[in-house]
Amino acid sequence: MDSDVSSALPVTAADVLAAQARLRRYLDPTPLHYAERFGCWLKLESLQRTGSYKVRGAMNALLAMRERGDRRAIIAASAGNHAQGLAWAAYRLGVQVITVMPQCAPQTKIAGVAHWGATVRLHGDSYDEAKAFAAELAAQHDYRLLSAFDDPDVIAGQGTVGLEIASLMPDVVLVPIGGGGLASGVVLALKSQGVRVIGAQVEHVDSMARALRGDSEVREPATTLADGVRVKVPGALTQRILHELLDDVVIVREAELRETMVRLALEEHVIAEGAGALALAAGRRIAGKRKCAVVSGGNVDAGVLAQLLCNVRPRAPRKPRRRVQEPLPATPVRMLDELTVAATRRTRLRPAVATTTTSATARTATPAFASTPTEIA
Amino acid sequence: MDSDVSSALPVTAADVLAAQARLRRYLDPTPLHYAERFGCWLKLESLQRTGSYKVRGAMNALLAMRERGDRRAIIAASAGNHAQGLAWAAYRLGVQVITVMPQCAPQTKIAGVAHWGATVRLHGDSYDEAKAFAAELAAQHDYRLLSAFDDPDVIAGQGTVGLEIASLMPDVVLVPIGGGGLASGVVLALKSQGVRVIGAQVEHVDSMARALRGDSEVREPATTLADGVRVKVPGALTQRILHELLDDVVIVREAELRETMVRLALEEHVIAEGAGALALAAGRRIAGKRKCAVVSGGNVDAGVLAQLLCNVRPRAPRKPRRRVQEPLPATPVRMLDELTVAATRRTRLRPAVATTTTSATARTATPAFASTPTEIA
Repeated sequence: MDSDVSSALPVTAADVLAAQARLRRYLDPTPLHYAERFGCWLKLESLQRTGSYKVRGAMNALLAMRERGDRRAIIAASAGNHAQGLAWAAYRLGVQVITVMPQCAPQTKIAGVAHWGATVRLHGDSYDEAKAFAAELAAQHDYRLLSAFDDPDVIAGQGTVGLEIASLMPDVVLVPIGGGGLASGVVLALKSQGVRVIGAQVEHVDSMARALRGDSEVREPATTLADGVRVKVPGALTQRILHELLDDVVIVREAELRETMVRLALEEHVIAEGAGALALAAGRRIAGKRKCAVVSGGNVDAGVLAQLLCNVRPRAPRKPRRRVQEPLPATPVRMLDELTVAATRRTRLRPAVATTTTSATARTATPAFASTPTEIA
Repeated sequence: MDSDVSSALPVTAADVLAAQARLRRYLDPTPLHYAERFGCWLKLESLQRTGSYKVRGAMNALLAMRERGDRRAIIAASAGNHAQGLAWAAYRLGVQVITVMPQCAPQTKIAGVAHWGATVRLHGDSYDEAKAFAAELAAQHDYRLLSAFDDPDVIAGQGTVGLEIASLMPDVVLVPIGGGGLASGVVLALKSQGVRVIGAQVEHVDSMARALRGDSEVREPATTLADGVRVKVPGALTQRILHELLDDVVIVREAELRETMVRLALEEHVIAEGAGALALAAGRRIAGKRKCAVVSGGNVDAGVLAQLLCNVRPRAPRKPRRRVQEPLPATPVRMLDELTVAATRRTRLRPAVATTTTSATARTATPAFASTPTEIA
């Protein structure tokens, strides 16, 4: 049934495979990393060129245009990552692009676009205002307006993320949803393999989730750390694809997002932007034997990350699952009591209560390693 | 000649290959990531289990002990990462270990050891004091003292990093040096393939570099961000191996280290601890067509990273190499002048001087994207 449905859609799994063939020359596959403390695999698009998956769709669109002989100039509106990806792709292919970004786009994203030599225009306070202005310019000057998500070539390009995850043989894949481009591509790539694909959105920034429920009222999205998915009007094309194929959408609270970003940095040494941590945050609510969350990007401003890290409050280490422990041969247990601090007994529920520490040394040592930097104020 | 020399050494390339076979069941290869803005490949041991390469040597030592039928308890001194790696390996194999760490070890490393259920003892102010104390305990109770670097099994285990880099066919590989374990392993793995291996040390924390020059005077190392390589007395075994095989040592200034850590985080989205950024910092002084730097670990305290990120000062974006640029078809150049900000003309030497901006809009937009967060105060 799935294949019937998707063949009726304007983008198919075959388009995703074609995109993979196009992109092979330019983009290496990104790493899959097992985050042990989360029990979840991560697809690290934060290590992609320009720091997010968006470069895939942009590159695929430029290459497809070239194949079709379309030589118009390109203009795009973007919350930041699409513009960066497009700038990089244009730089690699030697074409010129104009990007329109909202005034509030993160510095690091704006600098990224400029770094690759694209023309930048700052306009409006949201993606949607930037988009309207880009459309106006495109109509005026016969540029091609390349949507950040609502375009068959872009969707097919983003779908290559899904193809790269397939080798892992996951049972659940989690993707963040803004306009729906990544989710549409991934679901097209993985649905025929029987993988459950689940979207993630932020509380009050959930235009796609509402649209899929049939509520198409346009509401101003809340401000969020996940600037990359702050989209007021979701794509029409993506909405059709997700309506047919997506399994579910999980709504994540802002605080969960914050905590996940910090834990990713400190425990897994992965820098994720807000939207990048979204899928993993959602994954913590989903059961699965072999879960994979897409860390969609890592372009976060230094100040934002510093602020998050400053608010980290020490917390007792969590207890790992027990394994069989052989006793120390000929170890006097009393000696251990007096000399060392047994760290194995602490759990989240009983923080920093050492069970066997009696000596002064041990008591002094306790606060130091009772702390694990995972909780934020 | 090389092979004659290394066959006279107590660890050989064959030991490294044997370690690889042992570790295969427990540790996946870590990613190789091309850092485009540095022009250098990175071996991301920051994404290794427990956040550093040390788990390789520790796991190999435990497995080799088991093969030899040695069932003594294990004690180790460590600046933090060796203890974490050992704790993880012991947890996986169900054996018990005792670790001694200096009081000043980063919280995140101490918490990591406790997380995996190992016994932690804080003693002394440096790795060397912790080591002396561990040796004392080992003699008293017939524990096996596992050195963090000066042990054939540990060196062979760390060498597997080199084997995983080999597939890249690099011409230069850069490794940080503390006690010399990683460098020794990597040089054993790669030397027979004709790869140049270069060590990196921090200014005034350069005991190995001095020892290799014949200056074996023991000096107190300076305080440094790179706590992981702060070793007063380098290994004897590692010194012999490096003396025979290492090509060179580069000494890096503390400020370069700091800048590299920040750029790694913001431009490449890689979290490296001080010692982890060391090799890349050194790599910027070394010529090579295909360079690879080992990012040895990512265990940095939240506060330290936050502090570094807080001090980021905006800087004009650097100019990418020029590619052929097709002119915009039928684009009125005057219109671009007035409407957009041409970002391509800026270089590091002429920061934030827009050449063609005339309108008020353009002038307002300038400061926003003239900043790239790469310079630190």
